[in-house]
Amino acid sequence: MKHAPLVEQLIQAFTCLPGVGPRSAQRMAYALLDRGRDEGRRLADALHGAMDGVEHCQRCRNYAEAELCPICSDPRREPGLVCIVSSPTDVLAFEQSGEFRGQYFVLMGELSPLDGIGPRELGLDVLEQRLREGQIQELILATGTTVEGEATAHYVLDLAQDAGVSVSRIAQGVPMGGDLEFVDGATLAQALRGRRPFQS
Amino acid sequence: MKHAPLVEQLIQAFTCLPGVGPRSAQRMAYALLDRGRDEGRRLADALHGAMDGVEHCQRCRNYAEAELCPICSDPRREPGLVCIVSSPTDVLAFEQSGEFRGQYFVLMGELSPLDGIGPRELGLDVLEQRLREGQIQELILATGTTVEGEATAHYVLDLAQDAGVSVSRIAQGVPMGGDLEFVDGATLAQALRGRRPFQS
Repeated sequence: MKHAPLVEQLIQAFTCLPGVGPRSAQRMAYALLDRGRDEGRRLADALHGAMDGVEHCQRCRNYAEAELCPICSDPRREPGLVCIVSSPTDVLAFEQSGEFRGQYFVLMGELSPLDGIGPRELGLDVLEQRLREGQIQELILATGTTVEGEATAHYVLDLAQDAGVSVSRIAQGVPMGGDLEFVDGATLAQALRGRRPFQS
Repeated sequence: MKHAPLVEQLIQAFTCLPGVGPRSAQRMAYALLDRGRDEGRRLADALHGAMDGVEHCQRCRNYAEAELCPICSDPRREPGLVCIVSSPTDVLAFEQSGEFRGQYFVLMGELSPLDGIGPRELGLDVLEQRLREGQIQELILATGTTVEGEATAHYVLDLAQDAGVSVSRIAQGVPMGGDLEFVDGATLAQALRGRRPFQS
């Protein structure tokens, strides 16, 4: 006997969260029991709501509660410009930059045949279909720079070229405001290769 | 627009947990949405179960699902020896030591008049009643060594003396296996004052 069974179950359940070990889980359970029962109930309701109510957008595969996500159903976004990203958090990062007025296609992963993640798992058949429909004029690749990200980017490039759609890739180089001494060699090499004429 | 509303609600709800800021909350929400919907539902059920089903033991005030907690209803525990602790986690710490075969009284806090925590809030009227009933032979004080812990210890001492029950306090000194250089001065001073004859 350590905890009351319901408390033990709650602690166990908390450990399913990323970065939460047995000790943090215990702290969370006791914090809610001690002085946050209403917050605990709200969290439970929010969990049920999201686990059951959040699906994927039919168009871009991002999380959505309706058939289309808010971005895909926004008439002010250009449907001809589509940015390919690996995950919903990448969409958030772009949205926070405020720079992009096109739409997204969210792969929800990257090609990794050994883990059983092939083109179908990433919805690339859906993308292929959309490319063939002719509404997309430019595809912007923004997948990661890992081996899987590169493989995915090349697969998408092939699809786009087959459909006659032009493809670009977001620039790789040194981050804004960063100190050069903290930039890794691979990034610096890429920044050198991608150098552009300097204009006043 | 940042997240889908249900996702936003879930992220918000996660920030009620101790040590969870907006970024960890987002990571948790996406982790469950991406590949842990069943775990998310289990966590929701565990939360509802614990928030609604966990009450306080009528005897020791620790968390319990029935009228008595497992320790108070265990006939092998000595009812004459009662250890006074501030919180349920203190009970766990003692139980893990495997040293204590008596029962507990869990204050669920410490005296702090400025925060509106007086003797009644800590159930000290219940303790007083139990001390008068005559079943308790020794009270072991194990409240914290803060100002509030000390004040609480002295209040309980008074109650016990009024009822003619003997009171002891757990030893304060250097922790086992600890290096002296990492022990604070107040603890060392206490360890010196509490020195005992050394026996072979």
